[in-house]
Amino acid sequence: MQIRVYYEDTDVGGVVYHSNYLNFCERARSDIFFKKGLNPILESGHFVAKKLEANYISSAKFGDELEVATVLKEMRNASFELLQVVLKDNKKIFELKIVLAYVSHEAKPQKITSGVKEMLLNLFDV
Amino acid sequence: MQIRVYYEDTDVGGVVYHSNYLNFCERARSDIFFKKGLNPILESGHFVAKKLEANYISSAKFGDELEVATVLKEMRNASFELLQVVLKDNKKIFELKIVLAYVSHEAKPQKITSGVKEMLLNLFDV
Amino acid sequence: MQIRVYYEDTDVGGVVYHSNYLNFCERARSDIFFKKGLNPILESGHFVAKKLEANYISSAKFGDELEVATVLKEMRNASFELLQVVLKDNKKIFELKIVLAYVSHEAKPQKITSGVKEMLLNLFDV
Amino acid sequence: MQIRVYYEDTDVGGVVYHSNYLNFCERARSDIFFKKGLNPILESGHFVAKKLEANYISSAKFGDELEVATVLKEMRNASFELLQVVLKDNKKIFELKIVLAYVSHEAKPQKITSGVKEMLLNLFDV
Repeated sequence: MQIRVYYEDTDVGGVVYHSNYLNFCERARSDIFFKKGLNPILESGHFVAKKLEANYISSAKFGDELEVATVLKEMRNASFELLQVVLKDNKKIFELKIVLAYVSHEAKPQKITSGVKEMLLNLFDV
Repeated sequence: MQIRVYYEDTDVGGVVYHSNYLNFCERARSDIFFKKGLNPILESGHFVAKKLEANYISSAKFGDELEVATVLKEMRNASFELLQVVLKDNKKIFELKIVLAYVSHEAKPQKITSGVKEMLLNLFDV
Repeated sequence: MQIRVYYEDTDVGGVVYHSNYLNFCERARSDIFFKKGLNPILESGHFVAKKLEANYISSAKFGDELEVATVLKEMRNASFELLQVVLKDNKKIFELKIVLAYVSHEAKPQKITSGVKEMLLNLFDV
Repeated sequence: MQIRVYYEDTDVGGVVYHSNYLNFCERARSDIFFKKGLNPILESGHFVAKKLEANYISSAKFGDELEVATVLKEMRNASFELLQVVLKDNKKIFELKIVLAYVSHEAKPQKITSGVKEMLLNLFDV
């Protein structure tokens, strides 16, 4: 997924505000659904961040064109883990490991049903 | 209402990103409810921006302390209009006229009931 | 310019947060520069919102694909005015009139030089 | 530091958007400087996120009043590590470990001078 850095993404330091890289990665996750004509908000639930680790390697600035690559690391019973990297000119500038939990629309954690698991494997596994 | 300008509010231009003044004004509107122990999301509906006019007079930067003042301009049947100003060192730097429409939780425009109207008049009228 | 609505753009009301339409319009303005290989931050200055009027016609929600169209309304000595509309399924859902002032990098208003004026006319005039 | 959850902080899921907890923590870090009359952007440099780990324990919603507590974990030569927790009704709902690197205004990593180190120890150490 291609992402352009706009004014709103930057801060007074002249570079992308640190939490906006998480937004870029969330856009990329949603886009994987959208591109297949699916909605990441399923009838039976949706996914929320449970845990994440982020590494800031170098920074992006206004006008930069970034790419986000997403890889499935592990599928569990009620969550799954992704590795996402943000690239600029093919060089990694940000890395995110994120665990996403499956919750009901009342925000209760729930098991990922086999149907949903299959869908996720199809979407995220290459 | 006092607002401090943080990193997230600024952009690469070194000042507050233009749409964030609208956020500051929204915080001030919500705060008027919160300070009376009320929630701006009512049981019977909530308020959405319908129309607005904004004037950018001068800019705020990282660390600035701003104040937002809010005055009711007009109460109508299905909406009301506010004038909000953002002040820095007691000088007006931003001015917003905003019309807020009352909608159901299914986003349908609806008449402001007399109970809600009274509440709004109590909250916003000085 | 095509814009997808992501989680970050929505709020608890289930639709796009009101000030984010201004962000979408800003992205579209910047994109007009980027697409020609130009940067909206010029060597001699950049453009800041001076005044705007917004009309919220109907709302966009998570996953929607929007389009932003931009038309030059008036070129003045130190500013120019654009009309921008956000479309969903080819229907106008948001309209913005915005006056952008040309300022130096020290945020001082300045005359738009003839070179910059020509560039703007080429970019925004169809 | 007290933080109120406003519309802008929430998303269509009805709770605070995941990356906004990082913003809350950043506000708390900056506030520690502001409360002492200091600016987190120093003459000789400023601090940028280098690495972080976040745990989402439970969620906050529109109108919630949150508190952010910040503790210094480790002071190093060119960076320092903080532990920040976000509390709701005195219960921890979010936890962040963040490494902040000291960089020049040209974004080059640099040693934390002894003067700056002392200032940080005074600000963050209790």
